[in-house]
Amino acid sequence: MTGRDGGADLSPPPGESPIVVLVRPQLAENIGAVARAMGNGGLFHLRLVAPRDGWPQPYAWRAAAGADRILEAARVFPDVASAVADCHRVLATCPRPRHVIIPVLTARAAAEELRAIAARGLRAAVLFGPERAGLDAEDLARADTLVRYPLNPVFMSLNLAQAVMVLAYEWWTAADTTPPRVLMTNETRPATKAQLESFLDRLVAELDASGFLDHAQKRPGMIRNLRHWFERGEVTEQELRTLHGVVTELSRGRMRRGRPE
Amino acid sequence: MTGRDGGADLSPPPGESPIVVLVRPQLAENIGAVARAMGNGGLFHLRLVAPRDGWPQPYAWRAAAGADRILEAARVFPDVASAVADCHRVLATCPRPRHVIIPVLTARAAAEELRAIAARGLRAAVLFGPERAGLDAEDLARADTLVRYPLNPVFMSLNLAQAVMVLAYEWWTAADTTPPRVLMTNETRPATKAQLESFLDRLVAELDASGFLDHAQKRPGMIRNLRHWFERGEVTEQELRTLHGVVTELSRGRMRRGRPE
Repeated sequence: MTGRDGGADLSPPPGESPIVVLVRPQLAENIGAVARAMGNGGLFHLRLVAPRDGWPQPYAWRAAAGADRILEAARVFPDVASAVADCHRVLATCPRPRHVIIPVLTARAAAEELRAIAARGLRAAVLFGPERAGLDAEDLARADTLVRYPLNPVFMSLNLAQAVMVLAYEWWTAADTTPPRVLMTNETRPATKAQLESFLDRLVAELDASGFLDHAQKRPGMIRNLRHWFERGEVTEQELRTLHGVVTELSRGRMRRGRPE
Repeated sequence: MTGRDGGADLSPPPGESPIVVLVRPQLAENIGAVARAMGNGGLFHLRLVAPRDGWPQPYAWRAAAGADRILEAARVFPDVASAVADCHRVLATCPRPRHVIIPVLTARAAAEELRAIAARGLRAAVLFGPERAGLDAEDLARADTLVRYPLNPVFMSLNLAQAVMVLAYEWWTAADTTPPRVLMTNETRPATKAQLESFLDRLVAELDASGFLDHAQKRPGMIRNLRHWFERGEVTEQELRTLHGVVTELSRGRMRRGRPE
């Protein structure tokens, strides 16, 4: 997990991947947290436009939690124009665009667009504004596309690193093939239906012996309810062994207490 | 945007919505950042299990950026069991579940599941572990479902507030109807095709006058290229007025400089 420099073993992804451009960022801590979020989502290229307190700053490394290589590779530019000069496309995050005629994408649509741009071998930048003010009108005029996250309209103000996190997460997810739902069965196996049946047979026999199923009319329904319960979750071999033990132990207890057999 | 208490006008969403349970959180600053992320994604209910430094803590309010009401409504519990006692479902975030037989959902699938649970009028909790260690095996055994975000496998470690942000963002997005792509045209209107045509006619006339289109064979292709360019982006009435002005000005300049008419 850690590389030579003490940070995580992060390296630039092959081919083009989006460049995160922080425009006039104020807090070093936020720049570090941005690098961490970029690493989480598989982004690598970071550009800083006129960081308020200069660059590099030790606080950024502290907040990066090991995303050192992203910070080390970060480049500083005096203005947005020079930061995006070698880019083919420029997206800008903007919570409330006004008076502009420009495509506006959700974060998810932006991630798909960024994947499509990268697949064509083109370089894209995504602009994020300073902590309080956000991007100004001149910055926005450099962008060909805006990105607006769908979020709670009464509480839209995102922390800078959170804004980058959402984009990095969507960037990763856009190419991710994880099935939405799996049942973990690491190092153990689900029981077969025959194994489950054998347990149920035994349970019913013990319940018959105890008199629990004495009511002839209700007996089939009660057994069916039990079966539904045990069939519902996928039972593992390990769990079935434990359940056999539970039945054994409870039956013994009953016999020890001398209750009717 | 701000309520009576100086914070944002956040209030509990109607009906059931997921409860965020921070298990043994360490830093007040992170608790505040979690509240902010919850507000961004329309979550409100926060529970703290044995916060390391007690509760309340002023640093949390500083980091919450106005999500004060979420912090004020937060409830403290001594253990996970009591924190989830009134919940019908318990999900737990866990980057690397092992040796467990339990459904594991992506963040997106979890958000859909949480929406479905809420729609049934049931109460769900989502557990987030402490900053370094994450949830322990006893905590995980309280959950009926795990949530694992698809993220960069070489750099999985998420800041606590980032983890909550991704879930809150997915929760909001699961019910969001924003079109993925729109063209903003606030307070201005796209030009009609007739308006565009009238501009193109004028442009071609000026270019004919200047001699730019003198080559009879190439003329149709050159005009077609120009047309493609102007048709590609949606031009607004405002922009068309500006473009008319540009053509007028350039033509005057040509005439002033006495070049061939």
